[in-house]
Amino acid sequence: MVDVAIVGGSGYTGGELIRILLNHPEAEIVDITSRKLDGQEVHKTHPHIRDSGLVFKNKSPDELDADIIFAATPHGASMKIVPDLLETGAKVIDLSGDYRFTDIEVYEKWYGIKHTSDLKGVFGLPEIHREEIKKANLIGNPGCFVTGAILSGYPLSKAGLADRMIFDSKTGVSGAGISPTTSTHYPNIGDNVNPYKPTAHRHTPEIQQELGAFSDVKVSFTPHLVPVNRGILTTNHCFLNKDDVTSEEILEIYQKEYKDEPFVKVLEDGEIPRLSSVRGSNYAHIGCFEIDNTGRLVIVSAIDNLVKGASGQAVHNMNIMCGFDEKAGLTMFGLHP
Amino acid sequence: MVDVAIVGGSGYTGGELIRILLNHPEAEIVDITSRKLDGQEVHKTHPHIRDSGLVFKNKSPDELDADIIFAATPHGASMKIVPDLLETGAKVIDLSGDYRFTDIEVYEKWYGIKHTSDLKGVFGLPEIHREEIKKANLIGNPGCFVTGAILSGYPLSKAGLADRMIFDSKTGVSGAGISPTTSTHYPNIGDNVNPYKPTAHRHTPEIQQELGAFSDVKVSFTPHLVPVNRGILTTNHCFLNKDDVTSEEILEIYQKEYKDEPFVKVLEDGEIPRLSSVRGSNYAHIGCFEIDNTGRLVIVSAIDNLVKGASGQAVHNMNIMCGFDEKAGLTMFGLHP
Amino acid sequence: MVDVAIVGGSGYTGGELIRILLNHPEAEIVDITSRKLDGQEVHKTHPHIRDSGLVFKNKSPDELDADIIFAATPHGASMKIVPDLLETGAKVIDLSGDYRFTDIEVYEKWYGIKHTSDLKGVFGLPEIHREEIKKANLIGNPGCFVTGAILSGYPLSKAGLADRMIFDSKTGVSGAGISPTTSTHYPNIGDNVNPYKPTAHRHTPEIQQELGAFSDVKVSFTPHLVPVNRGILTTNHCFLNKDDVTSEEILEIYQKEYKDEPFVKVLEDGEIPRLSSVRGSNYAHIGCFEIDNTGRLVIVSAIDNLVKGASGQAVHNMNIMCGFDEKAGLTMFGLHP
Amino acid sequence: MVDVAIVGGSGYTGGELIRILLNHPEAEIVDITSRKLDGQEVHKTHPHIRDSGLVFKNKSPDELDADIIFAATPHGASMKIVPDLLETGAKVIDLSGDYRFTDIEVYEKWYGIKHTSDLKGVFGLPEIHREEIKKANLIGNPGCFVTGAILSGYPLSKAGLADRMIFDSKTGVSGAGISPTTSTHYPNIGDNVNPYKPTAHRHTPEIQQELGAFSDVKVSFTPHLVPVNRGILTTNHCFLNKDDVTSEEILEIYQKEYKDEPFVKVLEDGEIPRLSSVRGSNYAHIGCFEIDNTGRLVIVSAIDNLVKGASGQAVHNMNIMCGFDEKAGLTMFGLHP
Repeated sequence: MVDVAIVGGSGYTGGELIRILLNHPEAEIVDITSRKLDGQEVHKTHPHIRDSGLVFKNKSPDELDADIIFAATPHGASMKIVPDLLETGAKVIDLSGDYRFTDIEVYEKWYGIKHTSDLKGVFGLPEIHREEIKKANLIGNPGCFVTGAILSGYPLSKAGLADRMIFDSKTGVSGAGISPTTSTHYPNIGDNVNPYKPTAHRHTPEIQQELGAFSDVKVSFTPHLVPVNRGILTTNHCFLNKDDVTSEEILEIYQKEYKDEPFVKVLEDGEIPRLSSVRGSNYAHIGCFEIDNTGRLVIVSAIDNLVKGASGQAVHNMNIMCGFDEKAGLTMFGLHP
Repeated sequence: MVDVAIVGGSGYTGGELIRILLNHPEAEIVDITSRKLDGQEVHKTHPHIRDSGLVFKNKSPDELDADIIFAATPHGASMKIVPDLLETGAKVIDLSGDYRFTDIEVYEKWYGIKHTSDLKGVFGLPEIHREEIKKANLIGNPGCFVTGAILSGYPLSKAGLADRMIFDSKTGVSGAGISPTTSTHYPNIGDNVNPYKPTAHRHTPEIQQELGAFSDVKVSFTPHLVPVNRGILTTNHCFLNKDDVTSEEILEIYQKEYKDEPFVKVLEDGEIPRLSSVRGSNYAHIGCFEIDNTGRLVIVSAIDNLVKGASGQAVHNMNIMCGFDEKAGLTMFGLHP
Repeated sequence: MVDVAIVGGSGYTGGELIRILLNHPEAEIVDITSRKLDGQEVHKTHPHIRDSGLVFKNKSPDELDADIIFAATPHGASMKIVPDLLETGAKVIDLSGDYRFTDIEVYEKWYGIKHTSDLKGVFGLPEIHREEIKKANLIGNPGCFVTGAILSGYPLSKAGLADRMIFDSKTGVSGAGISPTTSTHYPNIGDNVNPYKPTAHRHTPEIQQELGAFSDVKVSFTPHLVPVNRGILTTNHCFLNKDDVTSEEILEIYQKEYKDEPFVKVLEDGEIPRLSSVRGSNYAHIGCFEIDNTGRLVIVSAIDNLVKGASGQAVHNMNIMCGFDEKAGLTMFGLHP
Repeated sequence: MVDVAIVGGSGYTGGELIRILLNHPEAEIVDITSRKLDGQEVHKTHPHIRDSGLVFKNKSPDELDADIIFAATPHGASMKIVPDLLETGAKVIDLSGDYRFTDIEVYEKWYGIKHTSDLKGVFGLPEIHREEIKKANLIGNPGCFVTGAILSGYPLSKAGLADRMIFDSKTGVSGAGISPTTSTHYPNIGDNVNPYKPTAHRHTPEIQQELGAFSDVKVSFTPHLVPVNRGILTTNHCFLNKDDVTSEEILEIYQKEYKDEPFVKVLEDGEIPRLSSVRGSNYAHIGCFEIDNTGRLVIVSAIDNLVKGASGQAVHNMNIMCGFDEKAGLTMFGLHP
């Protein structure tokens, strides 16, 4: 049993952490902070979580006493607070972009701000970095698009077979956060499809960093807002560096890579992932593996952006760091239909 | 051919006026005003209307020279500007609530503001007030919920048969306007249903005013936001003041009342209105006319909130005021599916 | 620990039973039957449930060996099979309409078929029938609309305060089942609202039976299909038989009635239920309690039609029948957003 | 003024033809045929089109007397009836795939049926084949995906600059037709994204035929069903055969190519098309023109699949064939929001 604190619990990833952790057999939430919601009951912001007894408190890092602290703070804010959180002796899982980059210059270029901390986080994708996560004090929990993209491409890059991957992602609107904006205004989304930042989304370098660590693969990424609450479906259009690879061989590579992974399901028999199968769950579904007559390989992944793409993955990291059963608190299936 | 100006063209009702009027055979848009969008091309705000040559201008009333002026300004703002608009010699159709009330005290109570103008508008529902509209200089164009509710109940109230009507309305989100708010944030609406102001929506007294003019009927109203862009479906649960009225007699009353109306379609054979049939059109569909074993009569109406519930009805009023064919510019069918 | 069988597992309620029971600490699924899917893995039909090891089998009742059997069979089919299921010595929870009625003639009139079994089920709404459920061998699990409607009206009827209730319900499309029809065809539902069976839905007499058992309240019911996957939001327009009752008194009656109920949450401070707060969970949210100036009281309830309105409630009944913690397997919160 | 007949008017493309043609200034619908709906009023199937006086009739080709006949029949059926329709002396616009292919073997391979007619249709995309359309008696009206894809890629292929184009398309569900199926069942689509036929959709060879006529460009295509009624948004990921081409040059090529086209709007200033801007209209919006740091060029197109992707384009073809103003009957703007 560990004591857990959530710093910045007023957004969607904070809400998901609460939703998951209240049913976690090994963790207890001892603190949830929010400056602006100080003193307010959690259900006023997260209306699905009633009678939890939880109340937001405006606490500074040194007032926290927890074994694990989740920082659900925005990028820029995290780098200012994480060093102090670590000072408390807790292990920290940061859900912002601040501790995901091996090269700070890349971060500074894409986020347009100066990085003020020289701490290094472990990139918190268990399927690639499990051993480092076990020993880590600070996790940079991956971005939502990043998780869906990497899981669809990692085995292929590791096998050295990929020349180029084009990730065409369709995301639910919760990925834009809890604050209303013009682009999340219902009449702009309902019955509509909206591509955005088609060549310059800041999740691109994260995908490049992780997939490029295994082989020299060129990465392109274009996100689209679709009229969906949650979930990211990624269509990975891949080009191989060899001509004679078959669908069956690709499928085999993925099955082998993921066969012991608790949360990655490789679909067989031509099954194609869809968002509803993973809605609300920590599972990633990966399927398709078809090659067309121009040599393009298609691989499709589906995740819930707030769970496997954020808070569920963060809890998975906690489980690994604490030596718990990796599936503890994360056994819920997708909510289909 | 008339010259038309739109004051306050940056919202959804402004956009709909432009969409309709650009295809109107008898009207030409000579001015569209917006303070904050001064100098901006219309398609930057209304992306569906390209190459119209229209540009927002920050003009004061005395700079306008038009035969008909549509005031698509918010309540409170309209009452300040409409007197000046009338001064220009134009006929004015105001889409706000400011000129809809026969009793100013009712307005002041429900809107919570002082009314500063003593001009009287004609309530712009052609199905009830056609003759007055013909001679009017100032129209108070009805509210969207109001239009759907009144059309579903008017023949019954006129026949003196109704004791009570409960309007349970389901509205698309465009009714909340073009500005993003928490209640229009996609993740709060998608795959969801949200009742709001269940006993105190300010459209209630407007419905009461119009239906109560014919007989002593008690009016209740509850709106619900549903994951729909446009349209209001109103389920009118009626209680009659007589026991022996049949479904067939009710249907006959409605058919007789509306038989010459160009935009009201009374559905027969038990057909039930649905939003898609009127989407984007100026038609109102009215149907159901069933009585259950407790004596409750159900009548259902469907309109597009931005067309028959706002801008289309405004153009209909213009057609009547100018002696045009009532259907001019309004012949488009609903967009089903 | 009990052994559980699901008869007729190919539909949505079957899928939900599997989803819930696979995470239930006291139950193990030993059999899932389906005639047409015999031999097929469960994930081919319920794509969110992978690696469960479950396979549909075409088994007759006498081949089943379970402590609890859920009959997720359609009405008409259940009455033919339930007697045989009871013969096996199992306790049976039937999700169809066949065993919900105290008066068989009412059933036969509304369902239009002859009832062939003289077994009596206990109406499986724990909030009203908990003590009978504890001792029951056969449960008639309530209909989805019925659950939402009754929970919104029961305390008021029990207090003898209600003269009339009009239930205006908005339902997700999963309530229509897993088989495609014209009325569930996406282009007929998306961006649309469709009332149906406005005065003659067969859930009406079930609501009347349960609410009418406490006082003489007249019940009306109209359902609407809205573009939502799951959930039923019910707006209960009530008329009281006394003039001087206040909102606060009504709220107090509900709080008192439901204060020990694990799955009913009475919302305070004018909070209004919405579907997203209960999505995927077994909770019912009840709120509003406003009275308008005509004396109409509005009470709103929200449930997930497949969970509290079907399979979750069935598991709740199992927990009560088996003496388990009532919340076992049902602790998941709603999936908002 | 021309007399028009619609053969097979019971589906969505039939409904759209009626919707458009009833407001066409130069055309009159003299016949609508349907075998199965013989004698039924049109509004029973197309509920938005009331009081048109139109009734489906089961007529054979030789009973038709029209100047223009639209065949809204499925592939396979069209090839059997079109020769007889031409025999009547009418010009024929076929909306199926039967007369779109220059190479019958390609058709037979992708559609899996033998082609029984040796008539050749003109590929009815006015932006490429206007001069041939003017003189044609038989038009093979393009597929919906095809129209969106070609318009996004044609200027580039014509300029000889493209090596490869990957069309990732997101389509509304009306593209699947009016008949309910498992894949159009609301709970399988709502709040979901479903890729299908990711490398083998039969619109692929049509795209290849038209784009490959200008230069040697490799074409890949993957469609996705999204929770939208109408519209196809296509993200064209292009790879150029030259390194030094700029975004600005690409934009200029598109502006020049489409500058006189009445229905193609090239968006500037980085504007990105979205479905709502073209909903219900015959416009195609094309925009983006960004190049990422791997050399991938992104071009996005948006059309309404039932209008520019089917019936609107068919009417455009009629206008060209008859020498009418090309915009006649097609002046409606998109329905945003």
